Amino acid sequence: MAEARETVLVRGTGLLGTSIGLGLRAAGHEVWLSDPSPTAQRIAEDVGAGVSWSPEKDVELVVVASPPEVTAQEVAHALQNHPHSVVMDIASVKAAVLKDLLDWADDPQHALSREGIRRYVGTHPMAGREKSGPVAARGELFTSMPWVICPVVDPHTQEQLTQREAVDTVTALARRLGASAHQMSAVKHDQSVALISHLPQIAASLVASRLQEAEPGALALSGNGLRDVTRIAASDPNLWVQILSANSAPVVEILYGVREDVERLISTLEDPAAPGGHADIAQLIAEGNSGVARVPGKHGAPPQSFSQLTVIVDDRPGQIAAVLNDVAEVGVNVEDLHMEHSAGHQVGMVELSVLPARRNELAEALTTMGWKVVLS
Amino acid sequence: MAEARETVLVRGTGLLGTSIGLGLRAAGHEVWLSDPSPTAQRIAEDVGAGVSWSPEKDVELVVVASPPEVTAQEVAHALQNHPHSVVMDIASVKAAVLKDLLDWADDPQHALSREGIRRYVGTHPMAGREKSGPVAARGELFTSMPWVICPVVDPHTQEQLTQREAVDTVTALARRLGASAHQMSAVKHDQSVALISHLPQIAASLVASRLQEAEPGALALSGNGLRDVTRIAASDPNLWVQILSANSAPVVEILYGVREDVERLISTLEDPAAPGGHADIAQLIAEGNSGVARVPGKHGAPPQSFSQLTVIVDDRPGQIAAVLNDVAEVGVNVEDLHMEHSAGHQVGMVELSVLPARRNELAEALTTMGWKVVLS
Repeated sequence: MAEARETVLVRGTGLLGTSIGLGLRAAGHEVWLSDPSPTAQRIAEDVGAGVSWSPEKDVELVVVASPPEVTAQEVAHALQNHPHSVVMDIASVKAAVLKDLLDWADDPQHALSREGIRRYVGTHPMAGREKSGPVAARGELFTSMPWVICPVVDPHTQEQLTQREAVDTVTALARRLGASAHQMSAVKHDQSVALISHLPQIAASLVASRLQEAEPGALALSGNGLRDVTRIAASDPNLWVQILSANSAPVVEILYGVREDVERLISTLEDPAAPGGHADIAQLIAEGNSGVARVPGKHGAPPQSFSQLTVIVDDRPGQIAAVLNDVAEVGVNVEDLHMEHSAGHQVGMVELSVLPARRNELAEALTTMGWKVVLS
Repeated sequence: MAEARETVLVRGTGLLGTSIGLGLRAAGHEVWLSDPSPTAQRIAEDVGAGVSWSPEKDVELVVVASPPEVTAQEVAHALQNHPHSVVMDIASVKAAVLKDLLDWADDPQHALSREGIRRYVGTHPMAGREKSGPVAARGELFTSMPWVICPVVDPHTQEQLTQREAVDTVTALARRLGASAHQMSAVKHDQSVALISHLPQIAASLVASRLQEAEPGALALSGNGLRDVTRIAASDPNLWVQILSANSAPVVEILYGVREDVERLISTLEDPAAPGGHADIAQLIAEGNSGVARVPGKHGAPPQSFSQLTVIVDDRPGQIAAVLNDVAEVGVNVEDLHMEHSAGHQVGMVELSVLPARRNELAEALTTMGWKVVLS
């Protein structure tokens, strides 16, 4: 794929399908689009993700970007209708899709063959937005995000099928869109996302749902802790029904552990003065400390690999630019920047992340230049 | 207080006490410090939070910034040792402290009197950091954060004590440090923080503790969702033991609801194909949608009151400054800025939040100026 600039058919022009189309077009590929909703397809065409597919067109790669619950069926159709194409899907749960396909391939009544499945590779781009639909799409959505590639494993022999060309094609696509490819089995993928994606979603929804009856006076005290924990609770219920029911076994396994922890915390807090109560609470928080220390930073960086400093600025146009001009003059690269703007106070705080070795030097230089700098 | 520049004694020079000292010094107050740990007190003095207190000095206000478990005792001592001073505490749970003080005041054996309690006001600044201790302190910590003020309510008559001068003094201090004052009873405060602070902390710790045994391959797929949900799990176990055991009743009440939701989700996911299963999952996620929509934005702004646009920049010094110079030239104020820097790709994405009415104008102007702009 790196050389050939294959033609690609994207089936399904939601947020992800349209973003794939946009990214591939930007990389010089010819992209065809089709979606059961003429409106969604038209929007995807209008934003430049590709052009309407005509059945006589030949394609090298079909990307099935349909909702999870119809993905297996769409993949089977694509394998039959495009007998020489590689077919990939991007559904966020992988073992269930693969199981359906293998069942159909084993069924002599079904048109799908074992041989056909060699052209299929399941994938999952770990990217998304709180908004959905083709309007929210952007070609840069996958930049530096993980993209999981699941070669087919034979359920009887546990061996990987020979499908090197298909896997290479799909891996090249992920990389062309700026993602980092991670190869693992569908089962391992589903266990991994149950833990690092589905559990956080459930926790965010559990916390946010308790806020429904909260008094406005309580909500007015909300801080960044609550905002961070509940941000992803704004997700689409229809999509999550499909994801959680397709991945129910690994998710429920994790929830048994959560239930046990909640039970223990409840008994402790029902009588916090009882012997061992304080130790129980401390253990839960300490276990959280150990767990969170294992979460990699953005783009796989080790956690907290940068140092921060905060510059206090006036809250008017041009102030952040002025700070950054001076930072550039010192010659330090800003690795991340976070701004807090304080409505009532005419003052803003700009937190800069820089390489630890350069932080003190930068703080001194900015102070000399007249900025109010706080080391954080 | 607005005029008088009172002298203030800060008892306890951890993160919050030292930050209060720094902020008050910056505002022109005379600040005395004392801490049972000579090292902590010395650091607080060295960073400029105040000077060592000598018992002969008179103070108008005593700020008790001790750990929660010794706060009531420290407040009682301060009321006795400083018979003309207002005394406030800043512990994050309020009803337990107040109950101890009122019990002692009702006890003829105890030196504390009912009259003395009129000089006490419980408060809770809703500010903190993941780091602790005087070294992490900064005077700007409270800028535009809520600061809860709890006037004393008589537990027998449910009436507020007459203590206007003390409440005014304490409110002025919160405002001087840049915070917004919220008055409510200790009971209402504790119920509020159980929901908007203690529940998110527990949820973050529950999720993070599940990560302890995760495989590195799974953690490598971590996205912003997991990072956001678990960030506050890095908190201090010793502090949280004190907070959760002091506020156990309201917290356990909320956890009963969480347990019920977890139970229902587990039964649903044990048999996701059973009738009603999909509806149960959809309901949990939809309830989370409604709850999170009620969380105010930073500084009390309504959620999502700004519009976003993203500018793609080269990943080298000076690029963000160059974007912001051009934004300033267009004359649009940046309300918030978030940067994503992609290690392997020599490209960064700068997301700007601006007033919705100015977004399209800014996007067009920046595009004309040669920037690659994506509306988000």
